[in-house]
Amino acid sequence: MRIGVLTGGGDCPGLNAVIRAVVRKGTDVYGHSFVGFRDGWRGPLQNATVPLGVEAVRGILPRGGTILGSSRTNPYKEDDGVARIRDTLAAHAVDALIAIGGEDTLGVAARLHDEGIPVVGVPKTIDNDLSATDYTFGFDTAVNIAMEAIDRLHTTAESHHRVLIVEVMGRHAGWIALHSGMAGGANVILLPERPFDIDKVCAFVEHRFASHYAPIIVVAEGAVPVAGSLTVKEGELDAFGHVRLQGIASVLETEIRGRTGRESRATVLGHVQRGGTPTAFDRWLATRFGLHAVDAAHDGAWGTMVALRGTRIDRVPLAEATRELKLVPEELYAEAEVFFG
Amino acid sequence: MRIGVLTGGGDCPGLNAVIRAVVRKGTDVYGHSFVGFRDGWRGPLQNATVPLGVEAVRGILPRGGTILGSSRTNPYKEDDGVARIRDTLAAHAVDALIAIGGEDTLGVAARLHDEGIPVVGVPKTIDNDLSATDYTFGFDTAVNIAMEAIDRLHTTAESHHRVLIVEVMGRHAGWIALHSGMAGGANVILLPERPFDIDKVCAFVEHRFASHYAPIIVVAEGAVPVAGSLTVKEGELDAFGHVRLQGIASVLETEIRGRTGRESRATVLGHVQRGGTPTAFDRWLATRFGLHAVDAAHDGAWGTMVALRGTRIDRVPLAEATRELKLVPEELYAEAEVFFG
Amino acid sequence: MRIGVLTGGGDCPGLNAVIRAVVRKGTDVYGHSFVGFRDGWRGPLQNATVPLGVEAVRGILPRGGTILGSSRTNPYKEDDGVARIRDTLAAHAVDALIAIGGEDTLGVAARLHDEGIPVVGVPKTIDNDLSATDYTFGFDTAVNIAMEAIDRLHTTAESHHRVLIVEVMGRHAGWIALHSGMAGGANVILLPERPFDIDKVCAFVEHRFASHYAPIIVVAEGAVPVAGSLTVKEGELDAFGHVRLQGIASVLETEIRGRTGRESRATVLGHVQRGGTPTAFDRWLATRFGLHAVDAAHDGAWGTMVALRGTRIDRVPLAEATRELKLVPEELYAEAEVFFG
Amino acid sequence: MRIGVLTGGGDCPGLNAVIRAVVRKGTDVYGHSFVGFRDGWRGPLQNATVPLGVEAVRGILPRGGTILGSSRTNPYKEDDGVARIRDTLAAHAVDALIAIGGEDTLGVAARLHDEGIPVVGVPKTIDNDLSATDYTFGFDTAVNIAMEAIDRLHTTAESHHRVLIVEVMGRHAGWIALHSGMAGGANVILLPERPFDIDKVCAFVEHRFASHYAPIIVVAEGAVPVAGSLTVKEGELDAFGHVRLQGIASVLETEIRGRTGRESRATVLGHVQRGGTPTAFDRWLATRFGLHAVDAAHDGAWGTMVALRGTRIDRVPLAEATRELKLVPEELYAEAEVFFG
Repeated sequence: MRIGVLTGGGDCPGLNAVIRAVVRKGTDVYGHSFVGFRDGWRGPLQNATVPLGVEAVRGILPRGGTILGSSRTNPYKEDDGVARIRDTLAAHAVDALIAIGGEDTLGVAARLHDEGIPVVGVPKTIDNDLSATDYTFGFDTAVNIAMEAIDRLHTTAESHHRVLIVEVMGRHAGWIALHSGMAGGANVILLPERPFDIDKVCAFVEHRFASHYAPIIVVAEGAVPVAGSLTVKEGELDAFGHVRLQGIASVLETEIRGRTGRESRATVLGHVQRGGTPTAFDRWLATRFGLHAVDAAHDGAWGTMVALRGTRIDRVPLAEATRELKLVPEELYAEAEVFFG
Repeated sequence: MRIGVLTGGGDCPGLNAVIRAVVRKGTDVYGHSFVGFRDGWRGPLQNATVPLGVEAVRGILPRGGTILGSSRTNPYKEDDGVARIRDTLAAHAVDALIAIGGEDTLGVAARLHDEGIPVVGVPKTIDNDLSATDYTFGFDTAVNIAMEAIDRLHTTAESHHRVLIVEVMGRHAGWIALHSGMAGGANVILLPERPFDIDKVCAFVEHRFASHYAPIIVVAEGAVPVAGSLTVKEGELDAFGHVRLQGIASVLETEIRGRTGRESRATVLGHVQRGGTPTAFDRWLATRFGLHAVDAAHDGAWGTMVALRGTRIDRVPLAEATRELKLVPEELYAEAEVFFG
Repeated sequence: MRIGVLTGGGDCPGLNAVIRAVVRKGTDVYGHSFVGFRDGWRGPLQNATVPLGVEAVRGILPRGGTILGSSRTNPYKEDDGVARIRDTLAAHAVDALIAIGGEDTLGVAARLHDEGIPVVGVPKTIDNDLSATDYTFGFDTAVNIAMEAIDRLHTTAESHHRVLIVEVMGRHAGWIALHSGMAGGANVILLPERPFDIDKVCAFVEHRFASHYAPIIVVAEGAVPVAGSLTVKEGELDAFGHVRLQGIASVLETEIRGRTGRESRATVLGHVQRGGTPTAFDRWLATRFGLHAVDAAHDGAWGTMVALRGTRIDRVPLAEATRELKLVPEELYAEAEVFFG
Repeated sequence: MRIGVLTGGGDCPGLNAVIRAVVRKGTDVYGHSFVGFRDGWRGPLQNATVPLGVEAVRGILPRGGTILGSSRTNPYKEDDGVARIRDTLAAHAVDALIAIGGEDTLGVAARLHDEGIPVVGVPKTIDNDLSATDYTFGFDTAVNIAMEAIDRLHTTAESHHRVLIVEVMGRHAGWIALHSGMAGGANVILLPERPFDIDKVCAFVEHRFASHYAPIIVVAEGAVPVAGSLTVKEGELDAFGHVRLQGIASVLETEIRGRTGRESRATVLGHVQRGGTPTAFDRWLATRFGLHAVDAAHDGAWGTMVALRGTRIDRVPLAEATRELKLVPEELYAEAEVFFG
């Protein structure tokens, strides 16, 4: 069997661990061979390949990024996209595709499967917002990076008089904010799922200062205010009521200063959260996803993707990957609220 | 309600996170009060207490160790142990006990429950060898520490001609060795569950050197050879066929040198694996265990302990904590073996 | 002898290590006693003290922040400030003061010394911009934190098409940017000492993209453009030609997008750089500063402060602490420029 | 100019940073070309080369190990060693050699220089025991790794009743033990330079337990007892009175148990200390060593090596590298002793 492998979408620690596991087990246990496609769907679309054997994956387990490159290319937005993919697969005598990516990449994979292309998926989202699996790799790394930043702010909080704001990733779901905020001991956590009341945030701020300790606010980049509650201009909110990209920390600074007179100091982690070496959990999960994905390809379980359920790796339909966004449920947020203020 | 809290057994990152969550939710949400018992079961046995309120738990979330102290004291090995515990609980008007500990501590808790003492348990084992729960806190921290050590050895392995051995914790179960070895990319992983064949280990060693790279062996402290296969004196094996405490790395050094002529260099991590600040996963899990344990006490769910199942925290009978050791199953070890050699 | 100790100015990893060393050596070797003054010069001014003995400093070596608190209070801006300090010192029978702080705190110390108050100084600036000493503690910690962030961005840079900007501390001197940028392998480093030419920055950006790799720009918060070169409104520059606080990263984003069409993604580390546990170098330096400061007090070397020269700790006049800002010299910046583009 | 580069001796974080700086500045600023020799002096001896240009050094700054490989090959122990080196240099039209290594590697370089071969040196010793330079790269990394291990032991020490022993590198000089022990807050530090009195060590152990805290002993692998003071058999000491390789931690365990009845638990870090990514200080120092080494080659400063003096990089005669071992002086050890017990 000859298997093509590609990675699509944003960077995520663990991608290389998946690739390595696929190639090692596929080669050493099953005797399959591999071809790497460059830059997500651009690879099969433009016949851009890279050799992919046991030597190519040596030493990549601890490394962030992806040796295959990535992109957001969508073959369904190209002329004859599917036909060109079929041509490339035929030209390389590829019997199966393993597509590693998020909602977009796997959405394409699901459609290609419907059109008869033999494909298996590996889910990837640093935001952990995929309902079909308990966790996705990369998430634990991002949470630890954010937590370590919060840890460092705590000593400063003891002797400072500024509000400390940490902006983390999470456009639509607040998992990184929730986990890092709880693990770091934040005083307030703001998520996209729960529009925040700026007056309550300011009340927590003042309550915290009353105990001679600066408040630490963890805010997901996609957190939104209750409609109409802010004093910033409306034009700064996007069509979904979201404040402009990467701006929520500075919006909070302005609003808090206006209402309490308190200065803030923001930490904006940005892409630091999605690069670098993965944690042990993410390497373990990514490696197991890779092992089980190549099993699925070997078994001809087309149209499925791997998923974590408890400590088991299951196969679920690819369609599940995109069916529903996994949001932070009310009862989990309530657990975090115990520690607010 | 007045609730007593104690921590027993070996050190484990996350103990303080449990205590903090119990006290914060118990106080702020339920209005309960708390008393800390010192050094595990020694506290109620000898009436050794420490004040335990919201102030006492401030800032302890990221800290290793336990503010309550710990011990391996067993009230069933003391004269009138249970009666003395009843006396202490009465003297402090304690309505419920939350016992945080491993097999021994929770075994005592289960017996006390059978005798009518209102107790709730929180499982703790850094070895992750408890079948009632998917994971225990502290384990993820230990795995990451071991993995980081292995990561550092890899660069040395590229230019060295010595066998690199890493001895990790795991007297009866090899979870730490398995996870850290897979996450670190070890060439051989030796577990207590699978007696090793020293000739096969040496074959992996030579195979690895053949690719101009020094082999990295991860070995659980409780790993055992196939009976009679070693050349070391029998007296160095204990009654269970285990080599003497902390000795497996040096036994391997001797055996490998004798059979292959290769020198080894050992890293023995020891207690470093069970101290220091917890990872985000362990803080999250420990915090949630604490929240749900105080819920269980509040609900009067005596004789239960909290357990992780997937992403849910469940209540299970305390007896389950000690019923069965969770060993590494054959099929998981087989996943790791893909990467051997 | 009875010695008062205080810490002033911004947070800096290593403050607790200084305090511990002063108290341990002063108590155990010399038999002196200590009193802690709270919140910098506010302590002696308002008679705010805290007990300071061997027990109080146990376990604080690895902890960020300062157990004494800090402030920017200046007794020379208060009515009768010096007289009130004399009163407090007399009330506590204090024979000597050890003042740990930056330019402001030590400037006050120098003036008090001139007025006959027996004081010894320990220099503290996370920015490392003090000409009297080779290094100050806290700096190495900040540099490592910034470097680790840059490290993580590198894997993302391999597969991304955005300019990655890292804003670090350094209002007047660019030491943190220079060291972290060189250690992290940045493609451009912008310092306050060298007004930058935005067109050259954009040229480096394009040159880097030409090798299929996203550029990483490290910028000190106080970096300034060549006058009149930016398209942002002039009102956003302060009186010194500095762009507004914490704004340089977003100014760069706007300018680069306007000139090259490239999107950027910023990481703003903020206070994360000045909190948390110190590196080994900073603990070593802070501990030695503390040991030598208490020696100086014991010897009655009033009006001096400790300073690192090579591997030696010397005593220098307090006045030197504030005489001249240590800026990044031309030849060191030239070393970094070798790696630009 | 065409310059050969080689790395000799044991692994040390920062080697790749030196190589990168040499090649980047040599190529981009001076227009020189490079050839890499494999595995130290084996490369020029056996004509084993590797291409070494700007592409080869991309991305290696943060990586441990050396892309050139290393060995302990000594051309003066080979027939016609020097003649064969001359032949290889001629065959590759090499005008200059940059040799990066420790006492042995630079000792060979000094002799080759005396015989007219144009060579420049870069000092490398993880043990920091070279008198010609304030610090060598790799040392700061090793100290931080050891310190982090000690940090983790501290929380365990609070609730444990075992002596905690950390064995670190340092065969002849105790710099790593001294710095990591001081930075980590060890209770006893044992160095090769100061034969230890086991009874005093036991007294510190008991003193520490008296304050309900387990003692942490940091011991250099080359630490030696006062002659005749131990109860272990004499045969376990080597010709220099050193206990056998890697054995000092277990010797201490045996002796302490015999004298105090206390159990110990050892952490032996081994090669973990010399692998992996370098700290910022080590990357900074290694990069500057590389820049100044290629300057020296460009200037024809044969027979010199680079050295750190304060914050300056100087050129010193190669002979100085091997003249004298830099031992821990009495007065520095006395600074550490303040914190013993």
